[in-house]
Amino acid sequence: MEAKNPEYKQIIETGFKTAAFVNDIGITLLDCGPGWCESSIRILPRHLQQSGVIHAGVQSTIADHTAGAAATTLIDRSQFVLTVEFKINLLRSARGDSLLCRAQVLKPGKMITVVESDVYIVSGSNRTLVSKATATMTVLSVSK
Amino acid sequence: MEAKNPEYKQIIETGFKTAAFVNDIGITLLDCGPGWCESSIRILPRHLQQSGVIHAGVQSTIADHTAGAAATTLIDRSQFVLTVEFKINLLRSARGDSLLCRAQVLKPGKMITVVESDVYIVSGSNRTLVSKATATMTVLSVSK
Amino acid sequence: MEAKNPEYKQIIETGFKTAAFVNDIGITLLDCGPGWCESSIRILPRHLQQSGVIHAGVQSTIADHTAGAAATTLIDRSQFVLTVEFKINLLRSARGDSLLCRAQVLKPGKMITVVESDVYIVSGSNRTLVSKATATMTVLSVSK
Amino acid sequence: MEAKNPEYKQIIETGFKTAAFVNDIGITLLDCGPGWCESSIRILPRHLQQSGVIHAGVQSTIADHTAGAAATTLIDRSQFVLTVEFKINLLRSARGDSLLCRAQVLKPGKMITVVESDVYIVSGSNRTLVSKATATMTVLSVSK
Repeated sequence: MEAKNPEYKQIIETGFKTAAFVNDIGITLLDCGPGWCESSIRILPRHLQQSGVIHAGVQSTIADHTAGAAATTLIDRSQFVLTVEFKINLLRSARGDSLLCRAQVLKPGKMITVVESDVYIVSGSNRTLVSKATATMTVLSVSK
Repeated sequence: MEAKNPEYKQIIETGFKTAAFVNDIGITLLDCGPGWCESSIRILPRHLQQSGVIHAGVQSTIADHTAGAAATTLIDRSQFVLTVEFKINLLRSARGDSLLCRAQVLKPGKMITVVESDVYIVSGSNRTLVSKATATMTVLSVSK
Repeated sequence: MEAKNPEYKQIIETGFKTAAFVNDIGITLLDCGPGWCESSIRILPRHLQQSGVIHAGVQSTIADHTAGAAATTLIDRSQFVLTVEFKINLLRSARGDSLLCRAQVLKPGKMITVVESDVYIVSGSNRTLVSKATATMTVLSVSK
Repeated sequence: MEAKNPEYKQIIETGFKTAAFVNDIGITLLDCGPGWCESSIRILPRHLQQSGVIHAGVQSTIADHTAGAAATTLIDRSQFVLTVEFKINLLRSARGDSLLCRAQVLKPGKMITVVESDVYIVSGSNRTLVSKATATMTVLSVSK
């Protein structure tokens, strides 16, 4: 996979900084390249479910936003992506210090890009897959 | 559909109050009955995407949590529900004063309950469907 | 919802007749209108799973094809629809004489149309929901 | 991942042979091991959509059935699996001689097993991913 816009990293960085909800809950960009993006969130008490596990909403938010960023690495300067839908399987109770999300484009397209997001719990040096999402993104032109 | 636990409302109320993430972002219970639950969230700048629309993560969180509550209205005192997976279609750009979510159990079960969540944007007296989720919940016993 | 192409019924009818797989397994059109379509299939031994229930593949095929037809009722003469993705929940063991599928457009769009398909088992005069699908369709122009 | 039932291969083989719909449309088992299964189908005119591409129903059927077989490799002699739901993304127009499906268990569980199915079109020595499914299976005991 190849980037069409040489300034894609800057756009992704700005996207993470200016998306209010993503900032509010504490998700930060780790790195990105053509067709992929990685992000993380340090888990605080406010991210939990009543049972003490990380709320599915936190996992969904990082999975969706990072998927959008992965799709964004492959588009033109005049385009942007929107989530059409995503599906997430919560595989295990998620407890730990932080979540790491790795999103990878499965199939780029002119109109539709499909991305997979793996969400891992990180506790010390251990990394365990806790949820997996598949997202369908639509690629739109700014002028439209 | 019939409630097995006469105190289900109290459990749902407590669930909304003690789920840290749900409280943190401002989701509140409106009402519930056997097989359904309604909740809402007043939209603040911190809930938005960089483009000014309500972040998919906010919509997913209210859809998932309210679906879990709807499933909870139908279980025994000794049981609880966990989200196995959900899929959400974002149907329109969501802009407005608040979101309202109506979750309805599609099929209750001993082990698996399927719930649908409709998420509406409310602006003044108008209500528009902005996203729709289908969630698969597993019913577990506390002792397990 | 309104039809843009006055000859949509003919197109749907032709679609059911000329889709080889749909014919091969025995799915037939019942009726359609702007934004919806209904079809059915008479269950034969060849449609079953080893356990005697109707195979998920049969339910998926009728759900997907009928959803595509429902989306087709709303498009221009020069357009066609393709399935981007669908999700199906199998709600109950499906045993009976025939399946009926009702597909309804949830949100029509210029590029993306979202459709829901309800699949019922019909046994005598009883009708029971056995599966539910949500499908994302993309609307394309013939010339592309 | 480890097989609990040493005769799992025989059970999978029997499953492919005795599932009427799978046989009827021509899906055959290639091989399986603990946590995975591969199957294929030789494409005939009857598997096509009106546009000449392989019908989504064929792709869904092979994805679902092979996912069920992959989950079956990990269960006890007294258990069986049922599909709760699956989601499939159709990534490309599928045209070619045959489909190959590789299903891999993502997360085995006592009650819920999640499986991914990759469906490839095979044309001569080329193999291209055409669809990808994620399936949630429930593990049940025969006695229940």
